[in-house]
Amino acid sequence: MKILITNDDGIFHPGIYALYESVKSFGEIVVVAPSIEQSGMSHSISLNKTILLEKVSFLGQIGYSCTGTPVDCVKLALHELFDGKPDLVLSGINKGSNTSQNILYSGTVSAAVEGAFNGIPSIAISLTSLKPDEYHTATKITKLIIKKYLSLNIKSNTVININIPPIKYEEIKGIRITRQGKSKFNDSFKRNVENNSYTLDGELKIIRDNDGNDDHCVEDGFVSITPLQFNLTNENDYTYFKKIEFSFNENLDS
Amino acid sequence: MKILITNDDGIFHPGIYALYESVKSFGEIVVVAPSIEQSGMSHSISLNKTILLEKVSFLGQIGYSCTGTPVDCVKLALHELFDGKPDLVLSGINKGSNTSQNILYSGTVSAAVEGAFNGIPSIAISLTSLKPDEYHTATKITKLIIKKYLSLNIKSNTVININIPPIKYEEIKGIRITRQGKSKFNDSFKRNVENNSYTLDGELKIIRDNDGNDDHCVEDGFVSITPLQFNLTNENDYTYFKKIEFSFNENLDS
Repeated sequence: MKILITNDDGIFHPGIYALYESVKSFGEIVVVAPSIEQSGMSHSISLNKTILLEKVSFLGQIGYSCTGTPVDCVKLALHELFDGKPDLVLSGINKGSNTSQNILYSGTVSAAVEGAFNGIPSIAISLTSLKPDEYHTATKITKLIIKKYLSLNIKSNTVININIPPIKYEEIKGIRITRQGKSKFNDSFKRNVENNSYTLDGELKIIRDNDGNDDHCVEDGFVSITPLQFNLTNENDYTYFKKIEFSFNENLDS
Repeated sequence: MKILITNDDGIFHPGIYALYESVKSFGEIVVVAPSIEQSGMSHSISLNKTILLEKVSFLGQIGYSCTGTPVDCVKLALHELFDGKPDLVLSGINKGSNTSQNILYSGTVSAAVEGAFNGIPSIAISLTSLKPDEYHTATKITKLIIKKYLSLNIKSNTVININIPPIKYEEIKGIRITRQGKSKFNDSFKRNVENNSYTLDGELKIIRDNDGNDDHCVEDGFVSITPLQFNLTNENDYTYFKKIEFSFNENLDS
């Protein structure tokens, strides 16, 4: 099988090395990842901008460094580097969790969603730790989950979002299927009064729930697997608004 | 009432002027929008980057030009320019439709979603035209819909995504509540062989459905209103994966 690997931390980040090590025995791997860190880039694409693609040495193999966003990497890889499609798109292993609101900010998750846009089963993997020496557990967990995943009859546009707690393999309590949580960022900005400039800061305030959402689960020492979709229609609000009459007879000047 | 206005085409784009004209009579307006075009920036945020905020003249009033993404604009505005929260966040009027897959790429829609993250009713408005002289219809439609919207008892985190067809006001056939469509981009890249660089191109291939999705509706001459959500959990896949046993007893070396 053919596997496309990407990330948002950049092609020379320990997390993407860990991902490659996890799955290298599963098939033919093509690595296309951003040349520099692209965290927080969400599903952004480069419009009216030139993207460079360059061969680099990646753990002794050829990898492709791309000056675009994570989603650009997936688009360009699918367009230029595959005859047909890969069988799987993997994105990560991200430094830091991609749970709750972070799912929408994440370039790592968006790269996986872009894979699914193209009908390819896709998986995003994140480690709830900013320390590069903690990828050992994540590598093993990733291998375990993807091996299982490949044994299933997965429908083509499925995206799963894996989050791994920052603990030793032996300490992992299990694997749970979860929902996206409702944790929120408390945004703050550091202000430089001299030039009226700001730098975004913020802290995720974990909100637990009875059902055990993604954050809740990782905080309790479990690996979280959240199946994602990319249809944003709000069905409850759809039903509500269907009942409202938007009339063209209103007096617009009143 | 207080209204925050932003967009992704930049603070000096005719679309944001049109939006301002639509709603200026409804309350106190604060305009914070990107200093340059930020189309396709999705929900991206500026991490480890300085953002500049500068007062500019906006249709004879004070507006704020921000060097960040559309979502940065909303975050910074909420943090720095309001006592409490605005009552409404409006984003647009975008040049070009934000339907189907475009909803995920769009900075315009993401700015509205960021408003909703903060508990504020939010609306994205887009015109299915790239011609700046066609905002006349969009201005009237926007005024009509937002006037109606304000008369409703809207729950706090509702996001609606309005798409307006590129026709005269008299030719608009009506307003429809729709779902996100399944139209897809046929991506292509222009390659410059000299430096192995690429420029993303692509065309949205409209997919119609029986129910009348967003694209379908606009193509037929109706204004489309799609209520959006930001919980990406795929409930069908959640149920499916809940039944799978992910065991820790697998032999990882096999």
